[in-house]
Amino acid sequence: MRLTHYLLPTLKENPAEAQIASHRLMLRAGLIRQEAAGIYAWLPLGLRLLRNIERIVREEMERAGAVELLMPTLQLADLWRESGRYDAYGPEMLRIRDRHERELLYGPTNEEMVTEIFRGYVRSWRSLPLNLYQFQWKFRDEQRPRFGVMRGREFLMKDAYSFDLDEAGARRSYRRMFVAYLRMFARMGVRAIPMRAETGPIGGDLSHEFLVLAQTGESAVFCDRAVLDLPVPAADVDYAGDLAPLVAAWTAPYAATEDVHDAGRFEREVPAQRRLLARGIEVGQIFYFGTKYSLPMEATVSGVDGVELPVHGGCYGVGVSRLVGAIIEASHDGHGIVWPDAVAPFQAGLLNLKPGDARVDAACESLYAGLRAAGIGVLLDDTDERPGAKFARMDLIGLPWQLLVGPRGLDGGMVELKHRASGERRELAPEAAIAFLRQSLSTSHPETHP
Amino acid sequence: MRLTHYLLPTLKENPAEAQIASHRLMLRAGLIRQEAAGIYAWLPLGLRLLRNIERIVREEMERAGAVELLMPTLQLADLWRESGRYDAYGPEMLRIRDRHERELLYGPTNEEMVTEIFRGYVRSWRSLPLNLYQFQWKFRDEQRPRFGVMRGREFLMKDAYSFDLDEAGARRSYRRMFVAYLRMFARMGVRAIPMRAETGPIGGDLSHEFLVLAQTGESAVFCDRAVLDLPVPAADVDYAGDLAPLVAAWTAPYAATEDVHDAGRFEREVPAQRRLLARGIEVGQIFYFGTKYSLPMEATVSGVDGVELPVHGGCYGVGVSRLVGAIIEASHDGHGIVWPDAVAPFQAGLLNLKPGDARVDAACESLYAGLRAAGIGVLLDDTDERPGAKFARMDLIGLPWQLLVGPRGLDGGMVELKHRASGERRELAPEAAIAFLRQSLSTSHPETHP
Repeated sequence: MRLTHYLLPTLKENPAEAQIASHRLMLRAGLIRQEAAGIYAWLPLGLRLLRNIERIVREEMERAGAVELLMPTLQLADLWRESGRYDAYGPEMLRIRDRHERELLYGPTNEEMVTEIFRGYVRSWRSLPLNLYQFQWKFRDEQRPRFGVMRGREFLMKDAYSFDLDEAGARRSYRRMFVAYLRMFARMGVRAIPMRAETGPIGGDLSHEFLVLAQTGESAVFCDRAVLDLPVPAADVDYAGDLAPLVAAWTAPYAATEDVHDAGRFEREVPAQRRLLARGIEVGQIFYFGTKYSLPMEATVSGVDGVELPVHGGCYGVGVSRLVGAIIEASHDGHGIVWPDAVAPFQAGLLNLKPGDARVDAACESLYAGLRAAGIGVLLDDTDERPGAKFARMDLIGLPWQLLVGPRGLDGGMVELKHRASGERRELAPEAAIAFLRQSLSTSHPETHP
Repeated sequence: MRLTHYLLPTLKENPAEAQIASHRLMLRAGLIRQEAAGIYAWLPLGLRLLRNIERIVREEMERAGAVELLMPTLQLADLWRESGRYDAYGPEMLRIRDRHERELLYGPTNEEMVTEIFRGYVRSWRSLPLNLYQFQWKFRDEQRPRFGVMRGREFLMKDAYSFDLDEAGARRSYRRMFVAYLRMFARMGVRAIPMRAETGPIGGDLSHEFLVLAQTGESAVFCDRAVLDLPVPAADVDYAGDLAPLVAAWTAPYAATEDVHDAGRFEREVPAQRRLLARGIEVGQIFYFGTKYSLPMEATVSGVDGVELPVHGGCYGVGVSRLVGAIIEASHDGHGIVWPDAVAPFQAGLLNLKPGDARVDAACESLYAGLRAAGIGVLLDDTDERPGAKFARMDLIGLPWQLLVGPRGLDGGMVELKHRASGERRELAPEAAIAFLRQSLSTSHPETHP
């Protein structure tokens, strides 16, 4: 992409309304624009982040055997009366009347609708287990929306729903999602730690939150450092096999948010030098809720012996739009954002330091074409701004690599390659720079960079 | 995908509520489920269609130089008061009050919001032309929603908005979209004919609708058969060049919907043997509307001489969810849907005609792995239903190719390959069938099948 043909409205100053780093940086880097309280437009660079995160989540959901569908944003109020949640949900639910005075709502979550779809079609234990998921915009009318996309009102979520014949099956489905979550967050370049959670209004008796550690996190967390050293399951993890030992290994070390923290247990179980007091941001939560929806909504299947049984369910959320903010909270510095390779909106920024100079222009065009041909996403800064402004903007938007092309380097046949995260710089011939980037990106993320 | 792990709820009978072929077939083929009047869930197979259509539209928009962003579904009422459309829009606009009694609406279109985004960032003629587009769900509260996704209330649209310094620039932007539309519909395997249109409530003085011809179309159309023989612009069309001759060639033959039909002109200009009276379904519309929004909303840029000028705009819609229905109307037979290759949810159906037979199971598994390795999307019917039910279902869902694997064929080392559209069948060795499909699909759609 050429910057002169793009919309990348970066800001030099910190916006006064933004209180936390990710909100400030998302506004400054031109990722989002506020359209109403807690409602954002995703500008072109921001949308690329959403899509990259979505792609990783989708690949891991598919690997775990889930099936994607798409439910509408608006739902009938009567559907929520079946489960008893319509009146219980409170003012966070956006209630709507259409032109015929029918009561609708903007879905804050989809347990009711997916249960209605399930009961409409699935009759037999032979169709189980089934895990249906979607990426869809949700609305929760927060009393006080703030912190940008971290506590917005209209937000993008991946929500999955599992259906099993019995509790044992449902727990197997739960463990598949547990493992898929470990993989998806690790692939995004963040460490998300599973922590036992309260189940809250969704109900059920088994739940884990996944929290990204970040100094600016919303929750205090307490954990055993041992959890930081656990190996993330590999891509060839056997989802058909017994995942209980793997989940047990990940849930054995103490890890709890302040809501459920047990200081006595923490001190008894965790040696002092392994005690980690940190802050975290919730980016996913998984629940086993049993027959909470299938009983009132009569979602049953015939079991092996022909008897009708209510299905056992679980639900599994990932805050896709929130993750953009959470990754920034976990990965930024004084100059701006530092995107992990796998989610970066472009892999490299290409800076033309003297546009109008025929030799520099030609070198940039050649590098631009070469990088694209190598499958490397590249943003070419072909504006006529001064080099200092270009350096600052490129640092701010946080692409993993910067290629600096100017007359002095070209005198020696060289361009400069800068690694955003480490600040390391090296001089390379243009072809060598392309080869280096191709090699580097395929090594760091073999699954996403062919 | 294995059918036993999928959700594909096909119906044997025609649903009573569906009046037109596409609605009947979308319900029968398990593509959608109605969740409220005019509001649908997209079941797994249907979602794959939406995504394939979206991908083709995106590729052609990018080729034409448009930049993708994503606006929220909900908008502030005050934004629409700026353009004067809030009161003018009527009961089709879904008006909402949030918990703080702020007036919102579910966007039926986005001219106001994109103009607000534009004016927030773009200051100079140097940033023009700019074309911003999105795929986003819209809501129009139809008085009487019907015909399934053809006249739904919550629907997926690609909407693009161009910004230019003057009318001449805006007309160039308009022509780029005109050409992109010719390409995208052709790539979907349908012939969409551009017809001069009335501009309606969006305003402006230049507009074309693109209509897919189908016997069951909503509008009567009158055209010169010559338009059917015009060559669709190739992938290497020069969007930076002068597209006026190309657009002129496509708009020269008479083509009009009944709304603007001029019977006298039709008979004068079109020889009797070339007069085509048909029916069509609108799948896209493009508008040039000049300064209709930029003037009241004060979206100006400084021109070459430094004087502030209101930008000239156009908007360009494609009904993504509606296209699923329109393609079915244009491509089905007595047995079901006949998907064009480029949009088909899977390229091939693989029918195991005797599950449990070790030799047939092994042949199916080998073909399944081989097709996937060749990059061919495949749906394996591994259910234990009888062959007749499998044949009927595969014909109904309309995948381009069917591979029939049974004991009798395997006795001779053969499987049967059936082409859904023509009904042609041939016997081939399994490896030859994979090679044939790979060759056939890469030849028919080199751009989408690597």
